[in-house]
Amino acid sequence: MANKQEFVTHITPRNEDFSQWYTDVITQTGLCDYAPVRGCMILRPYGYAIWERIQAEMDARFKEVGTENVYFPMLIPESLLLKEAEHVEGFAPEVAWVTQGGNEKLQERLAIRPTSETIFCTMFSKWVQTWRDLPMKYNQWCSVMRWEKATRPFLRTSEFLWQEGHTIHATAEEAQEETLTMLEVYRDVAENVMALPVYVGQKSDKEKFAGARATYSMEAMMQDGKALQAGTSHNFGTNFSEAYDVQFQSKEGKLEYAYETSWGTSTRLIGAIIMTHGDERGLRLPPRIAPIQAVILPIASHKPGVTEACEKLEKELKEAGFRVKLDDRDTVSAGFKFNDWELKGVPVRLEVGPRDLENGVVTIFRRDTCEKSTMPLDGIAGELQALLDDIQKGLYEQAKQFRDAHTYTVSNMDELGKAVETGFAKAMWCGERECEDTIKEKFNASSRNMPFDQSGETFGDTCVCCGKKAKHVMYFAKAY
Amino acid sequence: MANKQEFVTHITPRNEDFSQWYTDVITQTGLCDYAPVRGCMILRPYGYAIWERIQAEMDARFKEVGTENVYFPMLIPESLLLKEAEHVEGFAPEVAWVTQGGNEKLQERLAIRPTSETIFCTMFSKWVQTWRDLPMKYNQWCSVMRWEKATRPFLRTSEFLWQEGHTIHATAEEAQEETLTMLEVYRDVAENVMALPVYVGQKSDKEKFAGARATYSMEAMMQDGKALQAGTSHNFGTNFSEAYDVQFQSKEGKLEYAYETSWGTSTRLIGAIIMTHGDERGLRLPPRIAPIQAVILPIASHKPGVTEACEKLEKELKEAGFRVKLDDRDTVSAGFKFNDWELKGVPVRLEVGPRDLENGVVTIFRRDTCEKSTMPLDGIAGELQALLDDIQKGLYEQAKQFRDAHTYTVSNMDELGKAVETGFAKAMWCGERECEDTIKEKFNASSRNMPFDQSGETFGDTCVCCGKKAKHVMYFAKAY
Repeated sequence: MANKQEFVTHITPRNEDFSQWYTDVITQTGLCDYAPVRGCMILRPYGYAIWERIQAEMDARFKEVGTENVYFPMLIPESLLLKEAEHVEGFAPEVAWVTQGGNEKLQERLAIRPTSETIFCTMFSKWVQTWRDLPMKYNQWCSVMRWEKATRPFLRTSEFLWQEGHTIHATAEEAQEETLTMLEVYRDVAENVMALPVYVGQKSDKEKFAGARATYSMEAMMQDGKALQAGTSHNFGTNFSEAYDVQFQSKEGKLEYAYETSWGTSTRLIGAIIMTHGDERGLRLPPRIAPIQAVILPIASHKPGVTEACEKLEKELKEAGFRVKLDDRDTVSAGFKFNDWELKGVPVRLEVGPRDLENGVVTIFRRDTCEKSTMPLDGIAGELQALLDDIQKGLYEQAKQFRDAHTYTVSNMDELGKAVETGFAKAMWCGERECEDTIKEKFNASSRNMPFDQSGETFGDTCVCCGKKAKHVMYFAKAY
Repeated sequence: MANKQEFVTHITPRNEDFSQWYTDVITQTGLCDYAPVRGCMILRPYGYAIWERIQAEMDARFKEVGTENVYFPMLIPESLLLKEAEHVEGFAPEVAWVTQGGNEKLQERLAIRPTSETIFCTMFSKWVQTWRDLPMKYNQWCSVMRWEKATRPFLRTSEFLWQEGHTIHATAEEAQEETLTMLEVYRDVAENVMALPVYVGQKSDKEKFAGARATYSMEAMMQDGKALQAGTSHNFGTNFSEAYDVQFQSKEGKLEYAYETSWGTSTRLIGAIIMTHGDERGLRLPPRIAPIQAVILPIASHKPGVTEACEKLEKELKEAGFRVKLDDRDTVSAGFKFNDWELKGVPVRLEVGPRDLENGVVTIFRRDTCEKSTMPLDGIAGELQALLDDIQKGLYEQAKQFRDAHTYTVSNMDELGKAVETGFAKAMWCGERECEDTIKEKFNASSRNMPFDQSGETFGDTCVCCGKKAKHVMYFAKAY
């Protein structure tokens, strides 16, 4: 037990068993742990710190486009949940129910929110009076509960952290604009902060959210070629407003139903980061999302000047706005530390030893390429920023090349079946659910989304499955 | 309905009915609303924005002292909850129970967390191996559920938002230090950010947390003289560690129980801000906690230059780091806006009209004193900061003067009974629960806390209640 810090952990190679690689990485990095509650997980400090970074980036953008944060109760009375039929049907099978409060048996069951459209709409109905009150653009950061049978950390757990935006608008056009604006916010954070290249587009009727008129998603490709739905934005039209009586007096004095949207992302995004960027040594975190952007390691810290130089460097970089950590533990070896921080995916390691100091440099290890070099101590802040930018760009480019190389244009079912073994199939599709069902049954692949502007995207004019006239370009893939 | 914006709202005077004044203020300011779930409330944008400010100030300080954020499941299996007897007894009567997941009846009931010591300790037991792993200092921001009978927004609701810190340490001394450090963090935020003067000290055995060896609190005085417990910090010793088997190998190779602490503050603090600083016109928010520090109101905005000047001012102040809002609504009158922002307690109003522009000034209204003056537009950022600092200080001083004037040193039960009608009674106390019970029964007042250093505090040597030898100085008050 005393030597556990010296133990060099083994990570299953990705090409041997990707699923086991994923499990090895998340447990060995201490991102999360299994909770003593079925299907639930605990976000440990390093995992939660990534979530805090995601929150900060998302939240700033939500506010820029005029969203306000709120907090709604976690419990929803059954009667409220039952008002919109499609929605109930979609969520009822996975609801956890509170039936007892203290010593009292409740007269009505209360659902732990699986999502909050029903209670937001109930309050919108009370709050909105006239067109002057519109739009209302609200978001909440909270957890939701969906009683899942098969769970995997970050990807599918009974309880998970997310944000859910709920907005109401005076016109259909404004609601559609909001739906697409928020999808674009998600794409921006995914690609420019988390370095996740995503396909954005519209879901099929089969795959859309229960109760939505239209659902849009961003889909990321994991290193095993499977799709991960990384964020969704829904346009409800007046579907919920009619069920929950969300009416307002228009400028013209008429009573009208408000148009509603909702949009959400969750801790799933952490799973996407792991499975997009990770390698045999563990995590590789994009600098903009990394809780620690650079770790400072003293080498031979007993030698004169080393500790002082490290502390000075830490101070300088912190003041310059970097997220840095000085690892001055004396209970583990330097080799253990190298291993540890590589496993944790810290983008840059700065080694400071006597020889470095003699030469006025630090030794740099960049986690993305695992290359070593040196950097002058003088003016290091500017150099470090350039290096982090380069790593950020490199991780995105690498993921995009992988994604593009594993996206296959297919024109028949054989090709489609082969494509989804290692990536996404881009196919012409008739728009019928029957073909989606056939593809699901044969290849365990589902429709992901349809690119927005299909003008430059179309190829051929027959459905990949039934051979009838095709209507859309659609991505198909196996999915998490 | 069309004219509802012009309606001048009525707030019940504080001295007529303080409780109704409170309700009027929170509903009319839109801080929160009642939810369609028993005993729950909805934090609306303005209320949630105050919470975000509290979170930011607290969280930065937690991190400064080495705390890391995590997230634990909201559900706790009944068997885990039952392991620490005192704790169960304290919380079981107010637990909401999940008994059904999807269509499946659960074999074991799951509690929605009323607090999370039990599940943190369960995981600490798994995570800690040797002294090298200590301390572990974790915090989570989440909601908890306590099935309350009588509820009041912010003060007592079935679900509320809070933070709960949970730490384990190798020695009793370290745990005690942590307990007091976090109490000091709370005091700092209360006094220096929220402008709430507080008494800090130790709770009696009767009033301490279920399962704690010692509980410390900060107690604020509301304008009706009642106490509001605004934050607590608990030292558990090895109480929970023994129940949950949290053991570690010491430096000397012995297996020892870890020492545990927990500490929490909640959205109650918003209630404290309202009831400490509010007046007949509504809220008065201390500048450091105000979501909007200054509101800019264009006067006669149709006149040339007014709109442009307001926009320029907004930009300049935002760039200088102030939280400002330009109220350019053209659907309501200037008078309505004055009323609205005074009600909402925005510390400073900046009026910009044609005459102001001619003179190169803005008209200033400060919400704390309701005084008007002017300020040169040139170099306004520096002047505004000085004004906000003055308001912050003024609100604290005013509250402290009120608190001190309503804290009465008492030496018999008559005096005590009279004191708690309008404030706090500071009394000598024997330390026996029986006297606390008597005081509770006679005056509906409870012991709040005992000042730490009693050397300069003691007066007399007999208990205010039983007349036997006194051991402590204790504050007694009616409490929320």
